[in-house]
Amino acid sequence: MPSYTAPTKDLQFVLHDLLQISHSDIPGYADLEADFTAAILDEAAKLGQDVLAPLNSSGDVEGCRLENGVVYTPKGFKQAFDQIRAGGWNGLDLPEEFGGQNLPYLMGSAVGEIFVSANMALNMYQGLTHGAISAILAHGSDDQKATFLPKMVSMDWTGTMNLTEPHCGTDLGLMRTKAEPQTDGSYKITGQKIFISAGDHDMAENVIHLVLAKAPGGGEGTKGISLFIVPKFLVAEDGSLGARNGVSVGSIEEKMGIHANATCVMNYDDATGYLVGDLHKGMRAMFTMMNEARIGVGLQGYAQAVVAYENARNYALDRLQGRDVTGAKNPDGPADPLIVHPDVRRMLMDQKSFVEGARAFTLWGASLIDRAHRAQDKDADGLISLLTPVIKGFLTDKGFDMCIQAQQVYGGHGYIEEWGMSQFARDARIAMIYEGANGVQALDLVGRKLAQDSGKHVMAFFELVKGFIKENEGDARLEGFLVPLKSASRDLQAAGMFFMQRGMKAPNDALAGSTDFMHLFGHVCLGLVWAKMAKAAYAALDAGATDRDFYEAKVATGRYYMARQLPATALHLSRIHSGAETVMALDAEQF
Amino acid sequence: MPSYTAPTKDLQFVLHDLLQISHSDIPGYADLEADFTAAILDEAAKLGQDVLAPLNSSGDVEGCRLENGVVYTPKGFKQAFDQIRAGGWNGLDLPEEFGGQNLPYLMGSAVGEIFVSANMALNMYQGLTHGAISAILAHGSDDQKATFLPKMVSMDWTGTMNLTEPHCGTDLGLMRTKAEPQTDGSYKITGQKIFISAGDHDMAENVIHLVLAKAPGGGEGTKGISLFIVPKFLVAEDGSLGARNGVSVGSIEEKMGIHANATCVMNYDDATGYLVGDLHKGMRAMFTMMNEARIGVGLQGYAQAVVAYENARNYALDRLQGRDVTGAKNPDGPADPLIVHPDVRRMLMDQKSFVEGARAFTLWGASLIDRAHRAQDKDADGLISLLTPVIKGFLTDKGFDMCIQAQQVYGGHGYIEEWGMSQFARDARIAMIYEGANGVQALDLVGRKLAQDSGKHVMAFFELVKGFIKENEGDARLEGFLVPLKSASRDLQAAGMFFMQRGMKAPNDALAGSTDFMHLFGHVCLGLVWAKMAKAAYAALDAGATDRDFYEAKVATGRYYMARQLPATALHLSRIHSGAETVMALDAEQF
Repeated sequence: MPSYTAPTKDLQFVLHDLLQISHSDIPGYADLEADFTAAILDEAAKLGQDVLAPLNSSGDVEGCRLENGVVYTPKGFKQAFDQIRAGGWNGLDLPEEFGGQNLPYLMGSAVGEIFVSANMALNMYQGLTHGAISAILAHGSDDQKATFLPKMVSMDWTGTMNLTEPHCGTDLGLMRTKAEPQTDGSYKITGQKIFISAGDHDMAENVIHLVLAKAPGGGEGTKGISLFIVPKFLVAEDGSLGARNGVSVGSIEEKMGIHANATCVMNYDDATGYLVGDLHKGMRAMFTMMNEARIGVGLQGYAQAVVAYENARNYALDRLQGRDVTGAKNPDGPADPLIVHPDVRRMLMDQKSFVEGARAFTLWGASLIDRAHRAQDKDADGLISLLTPVIKGFLTDKGFDMCIQAQQVYGGHGYIEEWGMSQFARDARIAMIYEGANGVQALDLVGRKLAQDSGKHVMAFFELVKGFIKENEGDARLEGFLVPLKSASRDLQAAGMFFMQRGMKAPNDALAGSTDFMHLFGHVCLGLVWAKMAKAAYAALDAGATDRDFYEAKVATGRYYMARQLPATALHLSRIHSGAETVMALDAEQF
Repeated sequence: MPSYTAPTKDLQFVLHDLLQISHSDIPGYADLEADFTAAILDEAAKLGQDVLAPLNSSGDVEGCRLENGVVYTPKGFKQAFDQIRAGGWNGLDLPEEFGGQNLPYLMGSAVGEIFVSANMALNMYQGLTHGAISAILAHGSDDQKATFLPKMVSMDWTGTMNLTEPHCGTDLGLMRTKAEPQTDGSYKITGQKIFISAGDHDMAENVIHLVLAKAPGGGEGTKGISLFIVPKFLVAEDGSLGARNGVSVGSIEEKMGIHANATCVMNYDDATGYLVGDLHKGMRAMFTMMNEARIGVGLQGYAQAVVAYENARNYALDRLQGRDVTGAKNPDGPADPLIVHPDVRRMLMDQKSFVEGARAFTLWGASLIDRAHRAQDKDADGLISLLTPVIKGFLTDKGFDMCIQAQQVYGGHGYIEEWGMSQFARDARIAMIYEGANGVQALDLVGRKLAQDSGKHVMAFFELVKGFIKENEGDARLEGFLVPLKSASRDLQAAGMFFMQRGMKAPNDALAGSTDFMHLFGHVCLGLVWAKMAKAAYAALDAGATDRDFYEAKVATGRYYMARQLPATALHLSRIHSGAETVMALDAEQF
């Protein structure tokens, strides 16, 4: 059985040493003193460690089942969900007006990492609810907010997002689900949606589906799409639950992982739906859900790597096998622990340097969201919009790789389900696919985000990197960080320049390098946060921090990233520079 | 349901255009005319496509079960195994003396690719038998050969390899299984072995276990280890089956993949065993099994990528989603096929260029084994000994990555078990672990093989690359292959030099770079075979080959590898040059 101990100390380091949140001018941040955030994280850790994590393996083995139209979650899930609900965890970063605690999104993300590491499948029921709430908050009417949000914030009702159909995922213009207007202002929704995470279950009184469908008169393609609220049970004026709506679960998919989350085929048959936002502007509303969801998925990618790493480290410290070539480290035992072997270290350092960097990157991104929303800062909004596909695509690709790496540390035991390492990898795998497969993230980055507002945000990012380097150039201790960061950042700029020069004339040249660009960008982001973390760690050491081991390990882990991971930017750049020629050389028939 | 069509045309290309086997001086190769090998491959393809592949998904879902001590394989497996047996496939490359057909190992490998792509779990029952046969052939007595080999070659009896114990995998010196000598010359074997692939099943009359155990008087560590034959049923003098031996299946492991292969915990309780080869020289005998098995595992790694790629390609040709940015390719349809998108192409080209390169590399390796064994060529033996960890480690790491890439092409459908892409990835995952985890392969390469015979074989490899480059420098069409190959080969030499200089003084510097070195080496090998394949393809085109599409695609696919994959050597070299410092910086407690 794998174990989980929440990395509250490192989360606190990111919040306070790196981001210095209680000194931030973002509205609401001043309250986030270290003692306060520690209390929240400790409570979340207790719940994650004692309640959620122990159900992770059993939930994977048991999975969800559909019986007579009812979806049953694995044993213990309902009780655990009740505890999440009772703790008010879902409302942590939601408006007080609807029952939330109005803490920053940043705190929701820090807590989110803990819950996802502990039990990703269970957390998804909450995550989807959160996404649906965001859409209603941003685009719903006051009536809709009053009717649905209090119950959704408390998670008496949960939410879903219904986009995909059997013949269309990314290309939503092909959508067939129809919305017929009724005389009372509602719509009748008919069609089939697939891959609906948390589509139904036995842990809440009602499920509020947010459904994209085509209403008449909107035109071809994505233009005709609108967003609708379709409750599982209709809601009466007094808020009580009425008749069952015309929506049902066709089946539960058998998947590679996240078995404890019910991925449903949802059938809509003249189901009553209520338009959210403007008619035929559903894509816009959907992107509200998607953008936040994408950061949440990036978080899933690294959060699975966090718990996988933790177990791999424990195994490497415990398992005795072979001897240190430079001299026995456990001379009285039959062998040395795995961790003495350089190649095992390499795997652990890959994981450690990734997860700590990814955590810092994601929480920095979350703080940008807060700045955008709470301080109406358009530059922050533009920057996080640029970084969102990087957080989603890079962190889930690498997060999965790191789960595989962690599994590898176990040797043969890693392949046996009982040890839990397979599940981390199988669960992490979905994060590379849903909320827009990572290739679509790369396309979004290169095709839209890079040029957004005339390239203003990517220029701002470069300035940010340059500014940090310039500001710290005199600090000899940071040289090992600044030199590689400068070089990696140059690679990123060169790639951006290549796309600008070729993008219009030969768009395939840009598209053929899009995934490499996303990874290049991701490395530069992790290089930047590592350089900043090293500075913060030195500052703490200079200030006489008592836990010197922690801060020294932070610097050493960062050095590893700069020496071993960041140089990948040159490879990505060389691939980008090779353009589309070799990528597109074959005719379709030659494959 | 995934499909499988055996790549017989490309296998023929490797055998005849690239390796020109019928013109080879290796004994037995002259018979391998193109018509003859085509007939064999076509028969193997029929069996693979019509019998083995259709059982792959159902075998995964059903798995093996243990009931009252009896292991049952999934529905249809016994009948399929009977067909493999009836076709004499197991004896294809085994001595006529014991019922085989004495064809080269090369042909066994080419057929092996087909069977592994079609159904890896089923093929493993045969693969383990093959490994056990090799050990008995090399180290068994004449009596043992006469008693066991005919039945094993025909697969009336199958074989296993028993090395691992709960507390020791790589570090076999910790082994606890004991062998007590008996007055009749046999031994009583007692202990527990785990992770025993094909450990028991219902498809053969008997299972011949090859078991490592410690007999008295051998000393500490691996020195005391001997190899024993332990049959499931004892064999009487007349060859008939006698009493059940003291070996039983404790349980079947629940694994991430290869569910249809019974991975058993084997309990030996005073089981009768017969010493194979010399007492206390079991490690040597084991390596006979292991070396061949490791090439077989490398083959598994790429063979899973072959079938995964084939399905991804079919899906990308069929699935309509989005439009080509340079203009619609399917204007009358609702959307263009996925294959128009550059990022989808990138994924497919990664896979195609890998599997074709890996096939050529592995079959070249198989021809080196034939040269070593059939022509008693010690240089060939040394070279394949050097390349074995590269074939095993590099091809399984990359093969798994390519299965993940193929799964990614499917978007959400890739995560649903029904589509089969998850199984390819889950099955391929084990190949990175068993027969020595890939980190152990890297250690074997850097710590033993590189310096073997005073570095003679690695020097021979460099000469081989240099010779090819020099020989073809005048050919302008090959420039795009020779220039990157030269650069990659220089990276490999620089890495080798770094290890030589540091290896003795600071062994951790070499060990910290061992996996990067294995990958660097793998890339150079694939670069070399791609350059050679391009030359062969041009030769065929010059000779007026009718299937120009095939040969032109071959060159274009090679160009992709040289432009997009081979440059990874520089990244690996930079990591190697960074040495052990950042890898070993942390104390164990700081993790």
